[in-house]
Amino acid sequence: MSSTGKSDHSSPGEFELIAALQRRVERSRQCDDIVLGIGDDAAVTEFKTGQQVLTTDTMVDGVHFLRDRADWKDIGWKSAVSNLSDIAAMGAAPLHALVTLGVSPDVEASYVERMYDGMISAFDEFGGCIIGGDVVYSPVFFVTVALTGRAHEIEGEPVVMRRDRAMPGDLIGVTGTLGGASGGLRALIDGLEGADADALRSMHYRAKPRIDMGTALIEGGVRCAMDISDGLVADLEKMCGSSDVGAVIDSASVPIPAELERQFGAEATEIALAGGEDYELLFTAPFDLMDRLLARHRGKISHIGRIIETPQEGDIVEVRDAEGNLMSLERKGWDHLQ
Amino acid sequence: MSSTGKSDHSSPGEFELIAALQRRVERSRQCDDIVLGIGDDAAVTEFKTGQQVLTTDTMVDGVHFLRDRADWKDIGWKSAVSNLSDIAAMGAAPLHALVTLGVSPDVEASYVERMYDGMISAFDEFGGCIIGGDVVYSPVFFVTVALTGRAHEIEGEPVVMRRDRAMPGDLIGVTGTLGGASGGLRALIDGLEGADADALRSMHYRAKPRIDMGTALIEGGVRCAMDISDGLVADLEKMCGSSDVGAVIDSASVPIPAELERQFGAEATEIALAGGEDYELLFTAPFDLMDRLLARHRGKISHIGRIIETPQEGDIVEVRDAEGNLMSLERKGWDHLQ
Repeated sequence: MSSTGKSDHSSPGEFELIAALQRRVERSRQCDDIVLGIGDDAAVTEFKTGQQVLTTDTMVDGVHFLRDRADWKDIGWKSAVSNLSDIAAMGAAPLHALVTLGVSPDVEASYVERMYDGMISAFDEFGGCIIGGDVVYSPVFFVTVALTGRAHEIEGEPVVMRRDRAMPGDLIGVTGTLGGASGGLRALIDGLEGADADALRSMHYRAKPRIDMGTALIEGGVRCAMDISDGLVADLEKMCGSSDVGAVIDSASVPIPAELERQFGAEATEIALAGGEDYELLFTAPFDLMDRLLARHRGKISHIGRIIETPQEGDIVEVRDAEGNLMSLERKGWDHLQ
Repeated sequence: MSSTGKSDHSSPGEFELIAALQRRVERSRQCDDIVLGIGDDAAVTEFKTGQQVLTTDTMVDGVHFLRDRADWKDIGWKSAVSNLSDIAAMGAAPLHALVTLGVSPDVEASYVERMYDGMISAFDEFGGCIIGGDVVYSPVFFVTVALTGRAHEIEGEPVVMRRDRAMPGDLIGVTGTLGGASGGLRALIDGLEGADADALRSMHYRAKPRIDMGTALIEGGVRCAMDISDGLVADLEKMCGSSDVGAVIDSASVPIPAELERQFGAEATEIALAGGEDYELLFTAPFDLMDRLLARHRGKISHIGRIIETPQEGDIVEVRDAEGNLMSLERKGWDHLQ
């Protein structure tokens, strides 16, 4: 069974499919460190002494997307981006991807090729090359990407941003804006029309991993970060749990796309607090460092709250409104399609 | 969503499950090159300049195993072994594994923990450490393992065994014996009794990856190999396809476990030719090298045929019986449970 681009159910159709995927991958590939790509028991790559970062992420039909309602290219894009975002959150640079497809006979080869096109376009834009994978039969379609990266180095020493390094007194920052992807999903489900709804839908389908900002933050001195995939409050809770601290969010400071505000009005803030899949970065930094970062990356990062000692009672993450009153959220994180 | 040991559907049960898996993994872990394990956006490992080998392999319930009939520990063992075997086939040493589980609510935490125990026991025995993964909801249970390895080095130069290096005139060798796993599956399905049937069942459930022999072969000078997962003839066809050559197998030379011969008599050879999942290594070597290997690894490898030019007509892999007559096989490879 197994391995890189081989099928374990060797129908002629699957061999052709793998050959077609292989051609697509090789046409696009920018990496010069691949010794052996798709087609052997394993892929082989060159690696220079340093630290390697490894992540994996899976999307299942009916859980993370609905294949009948999505463009296969967008499914591919998102399966690459969710992994690239993990690499960005470490402050690392993407290297090599293994792609596993679980396909049933009703998944046509052209769908899978289109999905690969979406995946490849994300890797081409943000770094990383597909070097192998596996195609198996599965009654439910799924795609698993495993992605490696190279840890950033400062003066020859590898460094990464971890989620367990938040300290009481640190300020909390985020990159970009929040809520666009979630607003886009709502625009999609509710069939909203107009330019704002279109822009939000595009944020949902084409979220971008913040590879550049990950590098900028780690270069700037940040050592605590994660990506926002489940929603700001839900993910900040995870960071607080890992770091054994609490947090206060000033909801009026949470950056929101203008389209979200125009489309959803007063509800926009809640969408931004709870909505997932924006793939922006959440990070913490001491006051002076945050000050320098805000000055250096004006418009690209926002200061949205602060880290405190773990509260004796109540939520680990408090959300305050513009008057400083405690807000109560109906839901803390966007649970994808569930 | 995503990454190393996080769930994207954050029910308390899943967090507990991940914590339980993390404890299991950390208790067993022998690797000293892990900078950051389960729990962040990505895992981080040390790597010294060299070549890295990467593979991935997936098992789906109802396709590659039947969860109602298998012990979860055996499912875990096999999911590790099929990946370890790919690393062995490259002549490499296993390093780090990312494990993705697609679980539905009817999969109890204790099943998954048992599966992890099986996986961990394989990594403990043959090398490799679990450093992260992903748990997602899926209506069908599946497990995907992505495994890295380090390419073997000879005088400081990385070398691997590839499947596209077979040359006309090379002899064909295999490690161990063939057909045991497939005979064991039959013993299982047919409910056969006795010591031989028991031994065969154990070969089915507990196939071993040939990491040591992979290293021995590459050290000895072999540069063309693959693992036998789909069956000898089916996999040799793949090697011939990749190398653009043909092959002749002398079926009387194919090594068969004594238990298989006693249990299935005349049928044993066909089972050995077609049966998959033994995870032995298939390799080619020029005459002199094969001679030396046979002398050095007596009883551990067998010479079973030779590589020829691609035949103008007929099968790319010919199978000859003891009299030299062409055999016709009903099936070329074992298609797992399908």
